[in-house]
Amino acid sequence: MVSKNQIKTITGLQQKKYRKQHKLFFAEGIKVVQELLNSNFELHHLYATEALFNGLDNNKVTLITDDELKKISALTTPQSCLAVFEMPAEKPLVKTGLTVALDEVRDPGNLGTIIRLCDWFGIKQLVCSQQCADVYNPKVVQATMGSLTRVNVLYTDLAEYLAVADTPVFGTFMDGDNVYTQTLPQDGIIVLGNEANGISTEIERLSAHRIAIPRFGDLQQTESLNVATAAAIILSEFRRNFNGK
Amino acid sequence: MVSKNQIKTITGLQQKKYRKQHKLFFAEGIKVVQELLNSNFELHHLYATEALFNGLDNNKVTLITDDELKKISALTTPQSCLAVFEMPAEKPLVKTGLTVALDEVRDPGNLGTIIRLCDWFGIKQLVCSQQCADVYNPKVVQATMGSLTRVNVLYTDLAEYLAVADTPVFGTFMDGDNVYTQTLPQDGIIVLGNEANGISTEIERLSAHRIAIPRFGDLQQTESLNVATAAAIILSEFRRNFNGK
Repeated sequence: MVSKNQIKTITGLQQKKYRKQHKLFFAEGIKVVQELLNSNFELHHLYATEALFNGLDNNKVTLITDDELKKISALTTPQSCLAVFEMPAEKPLVKTGLTVALDEVRDPGNLGTIIRLCDWFGIKQLVCSQQCADVYNPKVVQATMGSLTRVNVLYTDLAEYLAVADTPVFGTFMDGDNVYTQTLPQDGIIVLGNEANGISTEIERLSAHRIAIPRFGDLQQTESLNVATAAAIILSEFRRNFNGK
Repeated sequence: MVSKNQIKTITGLQQKKYRKQHKLFFAEGIKVVQELLNSNFELHHLYATEALFNGLDNNKVTLITDDELKKISALTTPQSCLAVFEMPAEKPLVKTGLTVALDEVRDPGNLGTIIRLCDWFGIKQLVCSQQCADVYNPKVVQATMGSLTRVNVLYTDLAEYLAVADTPVFGTFMDGDNVYTQTLPQDGIIVLGNEANGISTEIERLSAHRIAIPRFGDLQQTESLNVATAAAIILSEFRRNFNGK
């Protein structure tokens, strides 16, 4: 049974303002909830239509009906459980290794896909400008498919961060140098820009290296690549020489 | 002014059944409509909230209000125009060059993104199994951002097509050979599988080469990559040695 108050609180968590106020966010579906339960994220409360996970504190679990799940879910097709978690404290910035930095990537689906890509390519740190989508937006949480538990996502003033960076900064541009012919380091910061406008002028000035994915069509009309697919190609280029596991 | 009948016909085109019956589909927004107008696609009728394109047959243009556009649009935020086009005849299969083949890729956004990627990488032919999303689904048309005009998308029995293919077939699998260390040809067929199940057993048997994108995380829990981001990386690998323009 879910009370009216609980419904109000949970649906409120679809908004950043209430997530910040309550320091809570939620995830849906067995796969994503299981990954969060297995990690360091602290469960606040689980709402499920059946007994699903072992070893949870009974006080933190409520069995609900499908109709009740519909009332609290952010999905068009709710998926048997919704878990509210406590928002963890941001972990400190790490200055070595490969980092991805996002300059105003606003689409939650793109942010979620980029987090999943970072996880795949063993990149543990994603630095976002304050104008990026919020990592605890339910759409981002769902799109990460659990990768959220393995990538540290931080929000900061991107210009300030890049200005004092210890590792080389690689900005991605339509007219940058061919990424396929560059020598790419194991330590560095890869900057990806906004969906419509790319990297802003201020951040461009802080990008020592300007890289681009060459276009192969006969015609010059081809649209730019979507930021998430561009991220896939660029991260693959940075990692391919180290061959993976 | 849009008649009730026109509204019924246009909204009907959101369904494949009616698109096939009328041999029509629609696109929305200046960018996509302009690309289709510039190509070989035949305009059936344009509905726009202002005079937008030059040189069109007046009988094929209707000025409408924002409220009328809302009634015919498939977008949550309609974008000043909606154009109905005639569905062109399928072009014949080409047996050389690089082809992408999709085995039951059902998500319209994924199909649209893959068409855009083919366009970027100069791949002119995309062969889809009959179970794939329909290329004239409005969500696919929007996601292609006009690339639809430069990539020939065909639907066929994928097993029959691959069984008689003249060029080598590269299936993408979670446990295939490291794509970074393969010698990839300029002529071949790259097969990508269904979002949840990957490539089917029947199609797997027809894939002489099994390739995979290596995973770089410390942990083995990382989810598979989304099919559109996997496509980005694989197409980039096939093209990177030819350096682009």
